Amino acid sequence: MTGFTGLSAFPLTPLRDDAVDDRSFAGLVERLSSTGVDAITALGSTGSYAYLTTEERAHVARIAVEHAGETPVVVGIGALRTSHVVANAEAAQAAGASGLLLAPMTYQPLTHDDVVELYRAVTQHTDLPVIVYDNPGTTHFSFTHELYARIAELPGICSIKIPGVPTDPDAARAHVAAIRAAVPEHVTIGVSGDAYGAAGLAAGCDAWYSVIAGTLPEPALAITRAVQQGRPADAVAESERLAPLWDLFAEFGGSLRVVAAIAEHLGLAPDNCLPDPLQPLSASQRAKISDVLSHLDLD
Amino acid sequence: MTGFTGLSAFPLTPLRDDAVDDRSFAGLVERLSSTGVDAITALGSTGSYAYLTTEERAHVARIAVEHAGETPVVVGIGALRTSHVVANAEAAQAAGASGLLLAPMTYQPLTHDDVVELYRAVTQHTDLPVIVYDNPGTTHFSFTHELYARIAELPGICSIKIPGVPTDPDAARAHVAAIRAAVPEHVTIGVSGDAYGAAGLAAGCDAWYSVIAGTLPEPALAITRAVQQGRPADAVAESERLAPLWDLFAEFGGSLRVVAAIAEHLGLAPDNCLPDPLQPLSASQRAKISDVLSHLDLD
Repeated sequence: MTGFTGLSAFPLTPLRDDAVDDRSFAGLVERLSSTGVDAITALGSTGSYAYLTTEERAHVARIAVEHAGETPVVVGIGALRTSHVVANAEAAQAAGASGLLLAPMTYQPLTHDDVVELYRAVTQHTDLPVIVYDNPGTTHFSFTHELYARIAELPGICSIKIPGVPTDPDAARAHVAAIRAAVPEHVTIGVSGDAYGAAGLAAGCDAWYSVIAGTLPEPALAITRAVQQGRPADAVAESERLAPLWDLFAEFGGSLRVVAAIAEHLGLAPDNCLPDPLQPLSASQRAKISDVLSHLDLD
Repeated sequence: MTGFTGLSAFPLTPLRDDAVDDRSFAGLVERLSSTGVDAITALGSTGSYAYLTTEERAHVARIAVEHAGETPVVVGIGALRTSHVVANAEAAQAAGASGLLLAPMTYQPLTHDDVVELYRAVTQHTDLPVIVYDNPGTTHFSFTHELYARIAELPGICSIKIPGVPTDPDAARAHVAAIRAAVPEHVTIGVSGDAYGAAGLAAGCDAWYSVIAGTLPEPALAITRAVQQGRPADAVAESERLAPLWDLFAEFGGSLRVVAAIAEHLGLAPDNCLPDPLQPLSASQRAKISDVLSHLDLD
């Protein structure tokens, strides 16, 4: 299942004056396609899917597919209401997406049964493969391995996007092996949390679902290819070199505002490109980001 | 500011086949108005605001105002994106609402500055008084007293809906007094979390923002009027009598699914009236609810 192994890059969906900025989004997608990432995931958390209307999301899915060339496009379809998720899935399929990414967004807390029925409804309404998106930092929903197993049994589930792995390599390998043992063989496991990308791939994950790759694909590709070519130590070393970047993600309240500031700094997105109420980082925070990029030769 | 003291009742927005069931919603509103609650808050968390489209929400606001008679109607306007919140505020004002209720919904975690700017944008775009809705169980955003103070300074903020108070009466009084000291005098304080309604009013809260009152207004009115008439011990005793109901809220994962089951049991809402993916309670859970209602003479 091409696109659900290797490096999947998550571009921003830049806004300008509270509307999707088609030009800069198309530019980000073209840049990713030309760099050779294995898949492009539009409308991930980094793509602000939760903030956009159904119509905006259909539009973004179409732009992504039009500008991705041969690179498979996955589209995030999460929403609070099942019927809206299904509508997003249909729109993504109509746009030509190769796969769907679904996180169980919550307002009222969800039970495990609620979430199984959500994935069942969606997989019954689409022909596209669906990636289970486990992102407790934004959804506040916690999966268990048993729940992964229940959902992964549904026809159409192709991958699970897991949060970061333990930092100890042995613990990381055991963690990935335990998930692998819980789900059918055809379901790939992809790590997220960019600081854990190298460690997750080295621990046996099939894919890296990467925020930074959506804006700075080269270092993420170098990490991914190193593991794929049997040089996991090189991947871990490159990730350690990028530690000042991962530290900024932690210090500035998550990856999204930092990658938005990076994209703005590099001229890839208009200023203040995130949806309100998400305020841009301060001038001093931006100056620190600029220093880190320069120090790491990423600007 | 009528409507922001006393009892504000939060009706469900029942769905039927994934569409708002106008008839049962209008019936719930008429029932509340005729019972004499001090305000009706449509599209609170209990009214599933987070799950409905902008168009559905404008429609629900209009039905509420049309069927509320002389009772003031407050409308919940929360959304993940500031421009959507503003659009909901304009629609609620056009529908004839008397006030607005706004929780800082989150997907990406919000900073204090984000939330202040959200309330600033909304209060600048509406003439209606705005109630600050502090509901960490659904928004996963935590207010501090300092943040209450910053927001309450904005022109147009009229009340703060706080989560439950400490169970110890002295601690509850101190808690409410500390919030009172932090905000301007014209800003009322309303308690939520129905198990804490009597304790909150007895501790000096001006209002009770009540889930149960949206479906079973009489016992909530009895509690509210007892405190207003200088009989707080009677209010606390009535709340203690209802403890089996509050216990069900805790046992069955929150108040929403329980009040939905109560409304369905009493014929006030169609079966399975909550938006998917929220599954209805099981037959055995419903049987237990029915037993409790019967035992408490509430059916």
